[in-house]
Amino acid sequence: MEVVAGIDIGGTNTKIGLITKNGESLGDISFSTSDYQNIDDYLDQLTLKIHSLVKKTLKEVTLIGVGIGAPNASSKNGTIENAANLNWKGIVPFVEKLNQRIDLPIKIMNDASAAALGEMLFGKAKNMTDFIAVTLGTGFGGGIVANGKLIDGYDGFAGELGHIDITLGDGRLTGLGVKGGLEAYVSATGLKRTVMHMLAKHMDKSELRTLSYNDLDGEKITKAAENSDPIALRTYKYTGKVLGSALANFVAFTQPEAIFMMGGLVKSGHWIIEPTKKYLEENLLQIYKGKVKLLESGLINKNPAIMGGAALIWNDINLDE
Amino acid sequence: MEVVAGIDIGGTNTKIGLITKNGESLGDISFSTSDYQNIDDYLDQLTLKIHSLVKKTLKEVTLIGVGIGAPNASSKNGTIENAANLNWKGIVPFVEKLNQRIDLPIKIMNDASAAALGEMLFGKAKNMTDFIAVTLGTGFGGGIVANGKLIDGYDGFAGELGHIDITLGDGRLTGLGVKGGLEAYVSATGLKRTVMHMLAKHMDKSELRTLSYNDLDGEKITKAAENSDPIALRTYKYTGKVLGSALANFVAFTQPEAIFMMGGLVKSGHWIIEPTKKYLEENLLQIYKGKVKLLESGLINKNPAIMGGAALIWNDINLDE
Repeated sequence: MEVVAGIDIGGTNTKIGLITKNGESLGDISFSTSDYQNIDDYLDQLTLKIHSLVKKTLKEVTLIGVGIGAPNASSKNGTIENAANLNWKGIVPFVEKLNQRIDLPIKIMNDASAAALGEMLFGKAKNMTDFIAVTLGTGFGGGIVANGKLIDGYDGFAGELGHIDITLGDGRLTGLGVKGGLEAYVSATGLKRTVMHMLAKHMDKSELRTLSYNDLDGEKITKAAENSDPIALRTYKYTGKVLGSALANFVAFTQPEAIFMMGGLVKSGHWIIEPTKKYLEENLLQIYKGKVKLLESGLINKNPAIMGGAALIWNDINLDE
Repeated sequence: MEVVAGIDIGGTNTKIGLITKNGESLGDISFSTSDYQNIDDYLDQLTLKIHSLVKKTLKEVTLIGVGIGAPNASSKNGTIENAANLNWKGIVPFVEKLNQRIDLPIKIMNDASAAALGEMLFGKAKNMTDFIAVTLGTGFGGGIVANGKLIDGYDGFAGELGHIDITLGDGRLTGLGVKGGLEAYVSATGLKRTVMHMLAKHMDKSELRTLSYNDLDGEKITKAAENSDPIALRTYKYTGKVLGSALANFVAFTQPEAIFMMGGLVKSGHWIIEPTKKYLEENLLQIYKGKVKLLESGLINKNPAIMGGAALIWNDINLDE
C-alpha cells in the first residue's frame, strides 16, 4: 500500500505519520527537534526515523513522498526561513537538502496552510472551494483556500493571520513584535495574557488568583469556567469577542463558505466556540450574515500538520490523475 | 472589430465604453442612473444607450458581450443585492433581466473586484498571479487576485476591504455601520472626516478652518498641503498611516506581489502615496519586507469599472482560446 510520510516540525518535537490516500494513519513516531543544533544532523535523524517507521509498519507499505508542515516554511522556495522557534537560523533549503537523502517527491509548507489543505483532502472541507482554517495553538496560524486552491502568495508566505493588527497599532505585542497582533489575544498564550488583564481590571473573587502566569494553562482556565469563575468567564468572552470580530474581517476578505477551527485552544470547546460564533455573526456585514459556517476541524483528533503535510503530496497526485 | 460594452454603474451616473480585446476604448457615453426608480425602465434605457453607442462608433464594430461593474454585485448570482446608493432595493437579478433585452454573454461583478480584473488584462498586472487592487473613491473597494484568479468567494461578495474593522470595534462608523471600518478613514469622505478630527485636536493655523465640511474636497485639501498647511499635512500623514497599516495586514493575508491604488484619492499623488508607502513597509512582517510593490494603477486615466467590466467578458474568451 502506498503511503506518504507527513511530518510536523515543531520547536520541541518532530512528529511523523504514514498516511494513506484516504487519510488513514498506518503508524507514527516522534523525536526531539530541539536536540539538533545542526540542520544536517537533524535531517540525517529525520531520514533514519522515516525509514525505520516504514520498516516497522505491520502492513506492506511503499513510501511515495514526504510532505512537511513547518513554521515559516515557504512552499514556493522549499525553505524554512528565519523561524523564531527553531535552532536553524537564516534560510534553510529544506527540501533540497532532504532530497539529497530521500529521492522522492518532497514538499514543505507553513504548518497552518498545510492543515487547511489537510482539511480539504481528509477533513470536512472535501466539497468546498472557499474556506479558511485557523490553528489556535501556541500561536495563531491561518490557511486560506479560494477557487479550490490554497493561497500561498507571491513567495509562499500567505496566511500569517496571527500577525494581523486588529487595534490600529495600539495593542499587545506578539512574539514577532506586531502591536495588536491577533496571536497576542487568541492563542494559548493570549488566553493567559487575558486572564492577567482581567485580574488587573476586575476585583471578582477567582480561583485563578492563586496561580502564577507560568502555572496557568488552558485546561485550568476551562476548569475555572466550569466552576463559573467570573475571571475565567470574562476571559473566554473577551477571547471569543476578539476572535469573532477578527473572523468577521476575514470574511470580508475572501468570503469563505466555512471557517474551521483547530489547535489546542479548540479543546476549550463551547467556552471558546459560543462567544466566537456570537461575535462573528454580530460583526458580519449584512451581505454575509447567516452564510458563514463556523466549524470544528474534521482533523481535531488527528495531527493537522501531519495530515496537511501528507495532503501536499496526495493533492499533487490527485491533480495528475 | 469585436468589442465588449464595459459598464460602470454608479449611484449618480452610468457610464458605457466599447472596449477592444487590447483594452482600447472606441467610444463612450453616459446617462443618469438616479433618474430611474424602476429597474426595468433603467434596463430599457441601458439597452438603448448600448445599441446607439455601437451604431454611432466610427469603426465597424461587433458587440460580443456586456460586462458590468456595480456596487454590491454578486458575480456568482448575477445580481445586485441591497445596494445602499442605488434606487433598486432587494435582490435585483440584473444579468437575467438584461439578457432578456440583449442576447449575448453578460457578466456582472462588484466594481472594485472588476477593476482588479481590468488591471490584470489591461493594466500593470499582466504577468502577475498574486496582487490586490484598492479603489479609493467615495468609498473603499478591494479586488484580490491569487493563483492567477480573482477571488469572488462563496457567493460572489469577496473583497469588501473597506468594511474591515481596523480598531477592535472602537472607531469611526462607515456608511454601513461598521465601527472602525477602513472606509471611514481612507476614502474621499474619510479624508474630510480626518480634517475635522485634526481641526478638533490641534490649534494650528490653517486655511481649512474657513471651509465647511460640505465645502471640503480632496482637491482643496491637496492645495492646502501644497501650501504646507499643517492641518492638511497632518491629514495626509494620518490617512497614509491608516492605509499603510491596513495594507500591511492585507499582505499577511494573501501575500501579493503588488498592491495597486486607483480612484479619486490617488489624484492626491505623493501626498497620499508617500506616507502610505512608509507605513506599509514599516508595518510589514519581517518575511514580507522589501517584497511588496505599492503602485499606481495602470488604469488611472481610464475608468477602472468600465475596463473591469469589459475584462469580465474578455477574460472568459481568453480562457476558452
